[in-house]
Amino acid sequence: MGKPVAIVVGVGAELGLGAALCRRFAEGGHHVFVAGRSAGKIEQVVRTIAAKGDSAEAAVMDTTREDDVVHLFDRAMTPRAGFDALDLVAYNAGNNRQMDFREMSAQMFEDFWRIGCYGGFLVGREAARRLAPLGRGTVLFTGASGSLRGKPGFAQFAAAKAGLRMLAQSMAREFGPQGLHVAHVVIDGGINGERLRRSRPEMVEGRGEDGLLGVDAIAETYWHLHRQPRSAWAQEVDLRPHKENF
Amino acid sequence: MGKPVAIVVGVGAELGLGAALCRRFAEGGHHVFVAGRSAGKIEQVVRTIAAKGDSAEAAVMDTTREDDVVHLFDRAMTPRAGFDALDLVAYNAGNNRQMDFREMSAQMFEDFWRIGCYGGFLVGREAARRLAPLGRGTVLFTGASGSLRGKPGFAQFAAAKAGLRMLAQSMAREFGPQGLHVAHVVIDGGINGERLRRSRPEMVEGRGEDGLLGVDAIAETYWHLHRQPRSAWAQEVDLRPHKENF
Amino acid sequence: MGKPVAIVVGVGAELGLGAALCRRFAEGGHHVFVAGRSAGKIEQVVRTIAAKGDSAEAAVMDTTREDDVVHLFDRAMTPRAGFDALDLVAYNAGNNRQMDFREMSAQMFEDFWRIGCYGGFLVGREAARRLAPLGRGTVLFTGASGSLRGKPGFAQFAAAKAGLRMLAQSMAREFGPQGLHVAHVVIDGGINGERLRRSRPEMVEGRGEDGLLGVDAIAETYWHLHRQPRSAWAQEVDLRPHKENF
Amino acid sequence: MGKPVAIVVGVGAELGLGAALCRRFAEGGHHVFVAGRSAGKIEQVVRTIAAKGDSAEAAVMDTTREDDVVHLFDRAMTPRAGFDALDLVAYNAGNNRQMDFREMSAQMFEDFWRIGCYGGFLVGREAARRLAPLGRGTVLFTGASGSLRGKPGFAQFAAAKAGLRMLAQSMAREFGPQGLHVAHVVIDGGINGERLRRSRPEMVEGRGEDGLLGVDAIAETYWHLHRQPRSAWAQEVDLRPHKENF
Repeated sequence: MGKPVAIVVGVGAELGLGAALCRRFAEGGHHVFVAGRSAGKIEQVVRTIAAKGDSAEAAVMDTTREDDVVHLFDRAMTPRAGFDALDLVAYNAGNNRQMDFREMSAQMFEDFWRIGCYGGFLVGREAARRLAPLGRGTVLFTGASGSLRGKPGFAQFAAAKAGLRMLAQSMAREFGPQGLHVAHVVIDGGINGERLRRSRPEMVEGRGEDGLLGVDAIAETYWHLHRQPRSAWAQEVDLRPHKENF
Repeated sequence: MGKPVAIVVGVGAELGLGAALCRRFAEGGHHVFVAGRSAGKIEQVVRTIAAKGDSAEAAVMDTTREDDVVHLFDRAMTPRAGFDALDLVAYNAGNNRQMDFREMSAQMFEDFWRIGCYGGFLVGREAARRLAPLGRGTVLFTGASGSLRGKPGFAQFAAAKAGLRMLAQSMAREFGPQGLHVAHVVIDGGINGERLRRSRPEMVEGRGEDGLLGVDAIAETYWHLHRQPRSAWAQEVDLRPHKENF
Repeated sequence: MGKPVAIVVGVGAELGLGAALCRRFAEGGHHVFVAGRSAGKIEQVVRTIAAKGDSAEAAVMDTTREDDVVHLFDRAMTPRAGFDALDLVAYNAGNNRQMDFREMSAQMFEDFWRIGCYGGFLVGREAARRLAPLGRGTVLFTGASGSLRGKPGFAQFAAAKAGLRMLAQSMAREFGPQGLHVAHVVIDGGINGERLRRSRPEMVEGRGEDGLLGVDAIAETYWHLHRQPRSAWAQEVDLRPHKENF
Repeated sequence: MGKPVAIVVGVGAELGLGAALCRRFAEGGHHVFVAGRSAGKIEQVVRTIAAKGDSAEAAVMDTTREDDVVHLFDRAMTPRAGFDALDLVAYNAGNNRQMDFREMSAQMFEDFWRIGCYGGFLVGREAARRLAPLGRGTVLFTGASGSLRGKPGFAQFAAAKAGLRMLAQSMAREFGPQGLHVAHVVIDGGINGERLRRSRPEMVEGRGEDGLLGVDAIAETYWHLHRQPRSAWAQEVDLRPHKENF
């Protein structure tokens, strides 16, 4: 039997969650399609995986473009010697920023939805199309505290993320009985990654050890979700650093 | 003092909730902008209101077009003799339909979002822009059970409605302290209106009296929300017929 | 037709919510059983109601004692000239206090449950026993933000209040189709009443007008819930002052 | 370094979840206190663990009795050669049964709370007292779908379970920052255990493979929660068999 195949959509810098998911899935024995917009970043992720003796390849794509998503799944489903079928998909695309509601342009509101929800639909639909007929597989969506609560200045983010959550929930209810495990992970708190280290280094410093979410720790729970036996599947789990106020 | 002004976006047939909201707000003393896509339908709603001696005017518009929404608010904010300022806005647009997830086109998923969430953003943003500086007013959003739960075949609907709910929640948290009351009404169950009577007459019959949601009864709660004193505002309320299984 | 009868359990000082509910229900035309532990306080509430020409009587009782609750309902159900049947019950008993979790005695945890949940069961069960067979009536439970979230230092309160909420929800699902309207009101924020004015006068002062929940404003929503037609019943509504951070 | 110590409260038949938790924790390297009311049953669980070369001991106790709970923790905290300190506690006591609300005795409502919530408080408080000062450890509570929703005939169960959930949430918010991981597992669906096999054998048969929750699969997620690094702790996770309708 060959290596099972995984897709991670929304991979950026090596320090980010997307890259950590790729590394964990590769370490778990998968050949990973590392999908993201920046060739430079995702190729670096692939190199790091390869350097450990694990297996991955880069897929430059824009998850808000239907053709790109379909093409990615076509690639991942193509039979290859030594490879087993696709059985794990993670949707990790998204961005976040506090904005002035009254000054926000309609285009900006839409952009948040495109990456936060619509791209998730495209990926979720392709995953359902390809995996449900096989009666197995896992689809994991990255959520946020905004998936559950709308805070001032975050309407554009929460509206997209809550939509993604409902997508995941609807898919879970429909495809779970067919053997496809769909789960939603609520990431609550700052991630100790590229973005925060660059934009708010003093905050990262101030939080101290375990004061921010660790990407490898998060990835461990994604992996656990993929490994859950069918007789006890989780649909939603929240993750936060132990010092987080919530 | 003149009549305060109200806007109801998403008005269709006379038997529907939009029309009932218009009638209730007019009966409560407002001059109502009856906004919807079909001139024939909304003019009929205006005529019925006028026949009772209340005040309303038709506004043909598409809530998914930014210009239309801005123009509608411009009209409603224009000072006129005998009229007071705008102080009540209801967003009632939306549609629902069970669909096959794997067969759904990307355009269809987007269309549900345009009417179910994006139009609500355009209306909510204009309302915030116009009313928050005045330190008063009410904005009411029509939700559904799909705002809270994603069922099989309803991913497109739930994703849009959950987004609308987060929009309302974010607005409430931001603009409540400034004096703008933003609330979300979860309509759970079939509405005894045009749509169901035409598409599923036997179901309407079978449910019997009070087995379906009454639009005038719903409108009464919208009116109550508008009338709540600032010292006890509701942000969310659910409504269902007493026989509804939930 | 005579006056319909109402019961309000958990009435204390005149400035409190219990007293406001009594006044509102009496003003709405009910004869109100003003039920509480302190004869002095509830008799004062009765006198105020009588002075306005409305109708009420005191019922000294402890809602955590089954005999007291049964006896109260026996009284309220007894046919009397000029009185119609019982059709409105509000459960408003409860207390709140931040406590050190590790130092809390088992007795203290139980006491919070007795008043916050068990008393609600006794009242809810009697209401269901008496009203469900008649196929009409309203039962309203006073909740709190603790009904939905457990904060540090409030485990004893949240555990009781969340239990009360589930009681209300179970009753609504079971007895709604039989004609009994059961609703739960989530009171979020400080009440501008006796307790806060005495214990934290500077806070009451600092919040300013409408910065705290007004008991009469809250009572208006309880009354609205009682008046809702069967074709659009609310099961849960949250109330907070417009300046509340939530 | 010796074996770390675990306590599982609410252990019954070998086929049940309590026993599975004991086996999993023992397999993970813990010495497990197998705590329950029936000496015969828990001794059987201990024997099975010992037969595999793992370590456990029986603790006959009633979790609704404060003395019993305190004594259990005293035992588990007593330094012994070859044993490390207590660092894992699971509260798995509880029962469930549909009941006629109007016929339910006050004692019955209280009994459900004693085992479903009060016992959890006693265990949670002892765990917090002993573990928070050490700045580490895990406390896991077994929830149910009734923790989140009150269905007809289950008011007594949902009121207790929702209370337990709030207890867990309050503890998590208070003790998480101190290093104690508190999580709540929502078990949704029938457990393929002793109870269902005896009471509804045809239902167990009809569901087929993976149609019911597997206790070993559930135990795997409890173990995962215990193993989560501090930088990504879950507070709540739901588990159900893949065919479950939810």
